[in-house]
Amino acid sequence: MHTRFPRTPVLAGNDVEAKRAELLHYFHATFDRYESLFELLSCDEAYYRKPITLRHPLIFYFGHTATFFINKFLLAGLIDKRIDPRLESMFAVGVDEMSWDDLDDARYDWPTVAEVRAYRNKARVVIDGVIRNTPFALPIGWNDPFWAVLMGIEHDRIHLETSSVLIRQHALAYVRPHPDWQPCRDSGPAPANSLVDIPGGRVLLGRAFTDPVYGWDNEYGRHQAEVSAFQASRHLVSNGEFRAFVDAGGYADDRYWDEEGAAWKRFAQASHPTFWVPDATAPDGWKLRLLAEEVPMPWDWPVETNCLEARAFCRWKSAETGLPVRLPTEDEWNRLHEHVGLGDVPHDAPAAANLHLDHWASSCPVNRFAHGELFDVVGNVWQWCETPTYPFDGFAVHPIYDDFTSPTFDERHNLIKGGSWISTGNESRHVSRYAFRRHFFQHAGFRYVVTHTPVTNPVSAYETDAMVSQYAEFHYGDAAFGVPNFPQAMAQLAIDAHRRHGNGGEARALDLGCATGRASFELARVFAKVIGIDFSARFIQVGIRMAETGAIRYTLPEEGELVSYHERRLDSLGLAESAGRVEFWQGDACNLKDIFSGFDLILAANLIDRLYAPRRFLDAVAARLNPGGLLVLASPYTWLEEFTKRSEWIGGFKKDGESYTTLDGLKDILGDRFTLVEGPVAVPFVIRETRRKHQHTLSEVTVWKRKP
Amino acid sequence: MHTRFPRTPVLAGNDVEAKRAELLHYFHATFDRYESLFELLSCDEAYYRKPITLRHPLIFYFGHTATFFINKFLLAGLIDKRIDPRLESMFAVGVDEMSWDDLDDARYDWPTVAEVRAYRNKARVVIDGVIRNTPFALPIGWNDPFWAVLMGIEHDRIHLETSSVLIRQHALAYVRPHPDWQPCRDSGPAPANSLVDIPGGRVLLGRAFTDPVYGWDNEYGRHQAEVSAFQASRHLVSNGEFRAFVDAGGYADDRYWDEEGAAWKRFAQASHPTFWVPDATAPDGWKLRLLAEEVPMPWDWPVETNCLEARAFCRWKSAETGLPVRLPTEDEWNRLHEHVGLGDVPHDAPAAANLHLDHWASSCPVNRFAHGELFDVVGNVWQWCETPTYPFDGFAVHPIYDDFTSPTFDERHNLIKGGSWISTGNESRHVSRYAFRRHFFQHAGFRYVVTHTPVTNPVSAYETDAMVSQYAEFHYGDAAFGVPNFPQAMAQLAIDAHRRHGNGGEARALDLGCATGRASFELARVFAKVIGIDFSARFIQVGIRMAETGAIRYTLPEEGELVSYHERRLDSLGLAESAGRVEFWQGDACNLKDIFSGFDLILAANLIDRLYAPRRFLDAVAARLNPGGLLVLASPYTWLEEFTKRSEWIGGFKKDGESYTTLDGLKDILGDRFTLVEGPVAVPFVIRETRRKHQHTLSEVTVWKRKP
Repeated sequence: MHTRFPRTPVLAGNDVEAKRAELLHYFHATFDRYESLFELLSCDEAYYRKPITLRHPLIFYFGHTATFFINKFLLAGLIDKRIDPRLESMFAVGVDEMSWDDLDDARYDWPTVAEVRAYRNKARVVIDGVIRNTPFALPIGWNDPFWAVLMGIEHDRIHLETSSVLIRQHALAYVRPHPDWQPCRDSGPAPANSLVDIPGGRVLLGRAFTDPVYGWDNEYGRHQAEVSAFQASRHLVSNGEFRAFVDAGGYADDRYWDEEGAAWKRFAQASHPTFWVPDATAPDGWKLRLLAEEVPMPWDWPVETNCLEARAFCRWKSAETGLPVRLPTEDEWNRLHEHVGLGDVPHDAPAAANLHLDHWASSCPVNRFAHGELFDVVGNVWQWCETPTYPFDGFAVHPIYDDFTSPTFDERHNLIKGGSWISTGNESRHVSRYAFRRHFFQHAGFRYVVTHTPVTNPVSAYETDAMVSQYAEFHYGDAAFGVPNFPQAMAQLAIDAHRRHGNGGEARALDLGCATGRASFELARVFAKVIGIDFSARFIQVGIRMAETGAIRYTLPEEGELVSYHERRLDSLGLAESAGRVEFWQGDACNLKDIFSGFDLILAANLIDRLYAPRRFLDAVAARLNPGGLLVLASPYTWLEEFTKRSEWIGGFKKDGESYTTLDGLKDILGDRFTLVEGPVAVPFVIRETRRKHQHTLSEVTVWKRKP
Repeated sequence: MHTRFPRTPVLAGNDVEAKRAELLHYFHATFDRYESLFELLSCDEAYYRKPITLRHPLIFYFGHTATFFINKFLLAGLIDKRIDPRLESMFAVGVDEMSWDDLDDARYDWPTVAEVRAYRNKARVVIDGVIRNTPFALPIGWNDPFWAVLMGIEHDRIHLETSSVLIRQHALAYVRPHPDWQPCRDSGPAPANSLVDIPGGRVLLGRAFTDPVYGWDNEYGRHQAEVSAFQASRHLVSNGEFRAFVDAGGYADDRYWDEEGAAWKRFAQASHPTFWVPDATAPDGWKLRLLAEEVPMPWDWPVETNCLEARAFCRWKSAETGLPVRLPTEDEWNRLHEHVGLGDVPHDAPAAANLHLDHWASSCPVNRFAHGELFDVVGNVWQWCETPTYPFDGFAVHPIYDDFTSPTFDERHNLIKGGSWISTGNESRHVSRYAFRRHFFQHAGFRYVVTHTPVTNPVSAYETDAMVSQYAEFHYGDAAFGVPNFPQAMAQLAIDAHRRHGNGGEARALDLGCATGRASFELARVFAKVIGIDFSARFIQVGIRMAETGAIRYTLPEEGELVSYHERRLDSLGLAESAGRVEFWQGDACNLKDIFSGFDLILAANLIDRLYAPRRFLDAVAARLNPGGLLVLASPYTWLEEFTKRSEWIGGFKKDGESYTTLDGLKDILGDRFTLVEGPVAVPFVIRETRRKHQHTLSEVTVWKRKP
């Protein structure tokens, strides 16, 4: 093999020029190795025929990694012009494996291989010049323009792996063996697998943004979990172990497949793992497709499957053994990794695993690399997890690559951990977190675990419902035009009024029309129990998620279709401690259950002009308050037929010939049972619609004290 | 007759207590006289049978004037509680004579006459107490609470007259003669009418708000006009003169009737004036209905008609004589009034006219009261004008009576001038301006004029289209949240940029997407010619009206259905002088005529994200600029499918995998022909939706200089 393939650099230190030299080497070695991979293609036609229908032909990937550097360097301000706008437009966007039933109908007039090679050479000169000539300081941080250099190189390394998968899926006629890409030649019968006890313990995942090693956005932030004790298979599931499932008719038996798996299986007409090649001339009837050749089936190598096949195997295994067999969660994988005490690939020695191209250009037997009592905790093939990828607390998109991970937070992309023989640089690190659609193939297999602990997946999806996001930002987001946060201001106003005029009780408060719940949390700084009620279940869910997980995530429209990504946390608002005193309920303010009574304070902010029967609410509200309790009303009195029939408006019209305002209506309706003790006073609020467009409104606040 | 019926008081002076005594007398005399009018009713049933279907029965009017005092006193803060909420709700709102085909379907459970009389007595005590005990200072002004006292009394006097009309329309069985309401007993053959030359001259109408005599809102402000010389009939048209039209079959001949008149005539089955009673026993076959009796037709008294009948007579008269006969405009009536040099009714002597109840409870012969060469320039009966009522420049609604006149600014209510025998107080003043639907009857007739000068009616209607009003306010109205006026700021920014970077020319500027035109006027401070173009003809009309009349009027939503009334004037914005340099055109920015070229500056503020083909506009715009000219763009880039198909957006999406903003798109589209010389910079704007709700947006401004 080659000299050792360079590791992802430490981005700290004192010697900028030495680091520059290291980065230059890291870049050229990576760019070279990527080009070397394409030497596996046997002819020009191999660049243009698609290995699989769902992705571009390899000519795209040949150009793409070079263009990626140019695009990110432009965004980072490292360069100021393109090399070739036509090619760069063509090579900008890959076809995501979004679904196996999305067919790519685009027609491309691809350039010749020679043109792309010439383009790559020009790009190499530009990238080399940037690395050589751009001033930078150490450490290189997430926000530094030079971060884009690492981003480009690590992106190359991802495509080194994913292009190798496409080459492995290409017809044999289009590939040829190559001395630099030689597979392992060891194989034998599969070892018997067995279960290893993994003790329970706490895992703490995530990285600090100041950590001086390049990472992708999804690695940052913080996640903590208690993992119960479980058992894990000592080895990755080998081709031999998996054969029992195939031979048992597992592919034909829908009992072992979930709905998604069964649909994929029907579509793909799958009856065995994708890299298995049925061959009557082979000793056992099976060969295995490697990068550039088919070999007699190495039964002791790890089987490669998608997540759906892995799950089906686990269900079959459960049925066979009577044990609760399943894939590990991400937390369990990390617990197991910690349990065996593995570090990352050393800079100055070969990996103690089939990882980082340090050994072969293929898998190897599952009993070659022992890690504690287990084998292949990292390396050989990636390991599917039960966990769909999700953002850690504190997740943020990178400013020049906001769609690296965020589109995969959809609960349809599952995590793979541990890396494969061709996972290098960032990919080889145990903190890296890659995820693919569950039907997709990589150099990936699995280890199973045995545990009764149910899987609970973290919420991954960004809230994208425009109205819900808008209110989440209204309640937990940034101030605009210098206007203070409205729910917070209203809660404070209510608390102040309660201290001046209230009944002295601090037992129960009601936040009626609580929307996404901010004022409820704020009231719980003072009140022992706060009930938040809203008509919209979608709104309530935001409050519940905030209370349960301490965080919410949502996108906001910026301009046209462009969005920004936001995470808001109770702890950074000083409200973590309040969460336990808040309860959210879906409910109708005009028809509220009797149990919602006995309050010392009721806040109804921006509620009454959205009720279908505001008078019914106002007539009933006194009975829900303890004597001397306060009702705090706030409303811009924006009466609209869409929400409140004209006949139900309580003001905002001519009555007996004279202007009759909503405040007049409130006085008439509430006067018997309440005394107006404060207001009216105007409190402003701002709701953000896009980056530039806002609603800016004044809500009229009145405070009413229930008569004894 | 009685002692002289008191005149509307002068509200200035030094002796508050003497003024209080005068007001007390003015009130009681008015309240008494109103009650005396109802003594004409012969029985209780007369109070409950409707004299005409379009109005309430008289019981309503009996209570209404008392309730009006109470309502206005409450609003003015002169009292703090009602006398009888049930009755006051019932007596609050009359049925407006909005249309002869609006039928009143309301059902009322009217109180007894005795109950209403008791209520009036209670109200009298309250009103008396207010006048006696409320401190006030002299002069009493429009904004003083005490103004409501005058408002109540003058309102009573209006109903004194309008109730007298209803009584005159009641069946004879329901009325009886009364010594206090005796008609004139003089009559004879009609005098021959003739024409009097009235020299041309300027009229200056309107009053100052500081004028110390009570007035209704429509009298205030300012209107000036040059009136061409014309001829006026010496006498009001008498019953005798009108008879020729009736006898000639004028009612049956549609040639003499306009569309509105013909429709009314069909509906009403009218074949003669409404107070004429065909009676075979009468000497000439006709009697005339007075308040409480029918008398042999007094041919020398003024005929009473609605405006539609008066117009039909004029058309017939034109046809008969070959002269251009028509009703006078309000300006012509005032010119005529000024020409004869009449004052108002003196405080200390009887009116020199059949006015103010100083002579009879009916009309009198048209040749009794000479005013210069004419007769009955005021008094006897009201005189219909060709002019629909409209607000003078500087018109404002009164804060406690915002719907006195404003609902009649609809071009369907025509002015009557001069007063009748029962017009007293404010009604008797020559500055008073009452208006009724053209089909409605009062004690009203007409004088005709002969002139070739065409009638041009002032624009009266308030703009009520929500979007147009919103933009009128956005352009010409009040600042909100301290944000400077946006079109003004944009024009100034464009002018400043032009001075720094422009081509030095100040000949022609284009305001594209000018909406209601403010920036066009602002640019015309500097540019010799400014063209304002907008896709919306409704918007353009506001700019045109502003340029032509110097003022616009519109309503704005306040809360629910409540609106406020606004007038905005070019002169108070310092733009009167600009108007002559501005031209407005309806046009499509994506498909603009070639004549719109040769500009030194083009401003396109908040335009591009509302175009259906923004790229087409941007591609063509350079050719419309002189070399070195500037294009100033401002937009919040709020792309919406509703206005611009997704495929036409020029930014705000991912392009080749990267965020592509509208600014990126502008640079790509404009880069060849323009240099970006300023910006981007954010300029805020606020659009008011209701009293409390606003849009608050940032528009991104860029300034582009056309390459030579």
